[in-house]
Amino acid sequence: MPDPFSFRQIAVDGAARRGEIVTPHGRVQTPAFMPVGTQATVKGLMPNDVRATGAEIVLGNTYHLMLRPGAERIAALGGLHAFMHWPLPILTDSGGFQVMSLSALRRLEEHGVTFRSHLDGAMVELTPERAVEIQALLGADIAMQLDECLRLPAGREEISRAMQLSLRWAERSKRAFESKAREGYALFGIVQGGDDITLRAESARELTGMDFQGYAVGGLAVGEPQDVMLKIVKETAPLLPQDRPRYLMGVGTPHDLLEAVKRGIDMFDCVLPTRNGRHGMAFTRYGAVNLANARHANDARPLDEQNSHPAARTYSRAYLHHLTKANEMLGAVLLSTINLAYYQELMAGMRAAIEGGHFDAFRAETMAGWERGDIQAL
Amino acid sequence: MPDPFSFRQIAVDGAARRGEIVTPHGRVQTPAFMPVGTQATVKGLMPNDVRATGAEIVLGNTYHLMLRPGAERIAALGGLHAFMHWPLPILTDSGGFQVMSLSALRRLEEHGVTFRSHLDGAMVELTPERAVEIQALLGADIAMQLDECLRLPAGREEISRAMQLSLRWAERSKRAFESKAREGYALFGIVQGGDDITLRAESARELTGMDFQGYAVGGLAVGEPQDVMLKIVKETAPLLPQDRPRYLMGVGTPHDLLEAVKRGIDMFDCVLPTRNGRHGMAFTRYGAVNLANARHANDARPLDEQNSHPAARTYSRAYLHHLTKANEMLGAVLLSTINLAYYQELMAGMRAAIEGGHFDAFRAETMAGWERGDIQAL
Repeated sequence: MPDPFSFRQIAVDGAARRGEIVTPHGRVQTPAFMPVGTQATVKGLMPNDVRATGAEIVLGNTYHLMLRPGAERIAALGGLHAFMHWPLPILTDSGGFQVMSLSALRRLEEHGVTFRSHLDGAMVELTPERAVEIQALLGADIAMQLDECLRLPAGREEISRAMQLSLRWAERSKRAFESKAREGYALFGIVQGGDDITLRAESARELTGMDFQGYAVGGLAVGEPQDVMLKIVKETAPLLPQDRPRYLMGVGTPHDLLEAVKRGIDMFDCVLPTRNGRHGMAFTRYGAVNLANARHANDARPLDEQNSHPAARTYSRAYLHHLTKANEMLGAVLLSTINLAYYQELMAGMRAAIEGGHFDAFRAETMAGWERGDIQAL
Repeated sequence: MPDPFSFRQIAVDGAARRGEIVTPHGRVQTPAFMPVGTQATVKGLMPNDVRATGAEIVLGNTYHLMLRPGAERIAALGGLHAFMHWPLPILTDSGGFQVMSLSALRRLEEHGVTFRSHLDGAMVELTPERAVEIQALLGADIAMQLDECLRLPAGREEISRAMQLSLRWAERSKRAFESKAREGYALFGIVQGGDDITLRAESARELTGMDFQGYAVGGLAVGEPQDVMLKIVKETAPLLPQDRPRYLMGVGTPHDLLEAVKRGIDMFDCVLPTRNGRHGMAFTRYGAVNLANARHANDARPLDEQNSHPAARTYSRAYLHHLTKANEMLGAVLLSTINLAYYQELMAGMRAAIEGGHFDAFRAETMAGWERGDIQAL
């Protein structure tokens, strides 16, 4: 019998929280970063190698998985954990974001959204009920409600309409989820409202009244400046219940993570560490490093001697430069690994700092490291 | 002080040999298969994962490495072993084969070959002396003489001319190698002569007189039918000294390996297991499997439950099919791993069979397995 889903706050430091989520597939220490496993794989990495970076949970994309290989197929094969051989917790998004960003043709109605698959052109319908069903078929430990996600900037009326629709979809999602409740599995509601704090507050209040197991702040990292995003996070987080995890969707850079944790966020997902890794960019304690740059060609030093992951300490910058220039798959694999390890190290550092009551000092030191850069390399 | 280079024959079974090569970076059990690490990486695989397939030696391509990142650069960075973080033996080819197959413009003269780099269009000269120098800079445990490799079919006169040139280059290679002899490092001569057994015999006799540490059979797997290749191997192998390893360059399929070992070959390299793996093809004990085929879409069984490598036993065919169809990097990584593991398992099986004196039975059983196919899947 798995533990029921739960979240407990272990320590606080200002608005920053140190917590633990319990799911049917294990525990997640928060603040947590979730590597993105879009098509049932964190691109290029074996599951054990993802674990070795320190990840305790990964994200799967409902939109991609429903289209290929299909949710019913994954269910028949034992669920997403078995399919991708990832035994730890999985969170799936609802598909709403990718419907907006990836399908050229879509029709949004009260009932749901109908869109043309970017793979084979088939028309597919996604409703709040179907999104919940798909995520149950996948076996996600944490499922997300279907919402409508706008790009910013957008007009207030449009933002309000989408937020209200997302609230009605939240209610339908919750009803569908509860009709087939599985012990310990969770559904999160998603706060919408764009860059309008009044609308965000209304969304947070209504969602909180529905009593989800966790709450996401959605519709950010969609084109707005960082200060706008952080302002929304700062104003929204205190409106959410203390005893539920808070998840900032699709965010972000290491700096975004530091600032959002400071403002009370517990969970993140983002493609940056893997996508940028595939393009020769490394995240390190002394900032971002572009391995394609010729200055690395003769540099025998590893990327980051202080990183806890062997990949960051083992391979020379010259080798990573060579793999990047030669467009070798191993370059993508190693830099994705190194970046995920850095993200996890950053999260672990934040967790320890919150526990120790010195989060602001950790934040300042970390940012100073990025700004100082890699002095030896200059 | 590393052991000096040596080869000893441990057992024979007919013409098949079970042996051991000692190099400065360790021992290699023969018959041995060498994964190809063209650009200082076995494509997509971390060095430890290559080792975990059972590989004891890898091949590096002089042509690619001299152009990018450059032999002097690799030497300054500590040599190819350190650069690619592969601590076991490395064999490098001489670059001759790729000069013929990859550079559009080339001029062959007695002195050497001048060619246009496929990377930046620069004109580059490769001589027997420079090929030896490059391989010493890389730190190859086993270096190959520069030779001229023709495509087949070719006329007898052309084949004879190229073979004679290769002999003169062999002599120059040996002189260059000995002028800077490094204890324990080896240079192999390459038998040429196309599909003409008289020319092959002449080449083998002349090379043997020069006393190389090992001998390759080159200029095969270049378009000729398998029976022609095997005939040349069968006739050539007995002309080479028993106390030196014999290497069949660029070969081949699992069936090629079985047949060539039967005829007295000790070493192989080939891109097939990794290249085909990147294109959704798996080599298994029941033959080749095309994972792109829709019949695998719902198949929860692993690819090969009897393979000694976890990757072949862990992931379902449905998952490998999905990764292949979705063009996911992890599909290439897993299938390359699985294929290399199968090749190594095949070599280990041959070694054990030769030691046990039942190579022909092993060969017959292995081929019957391929022909029988995957009965459950039908």
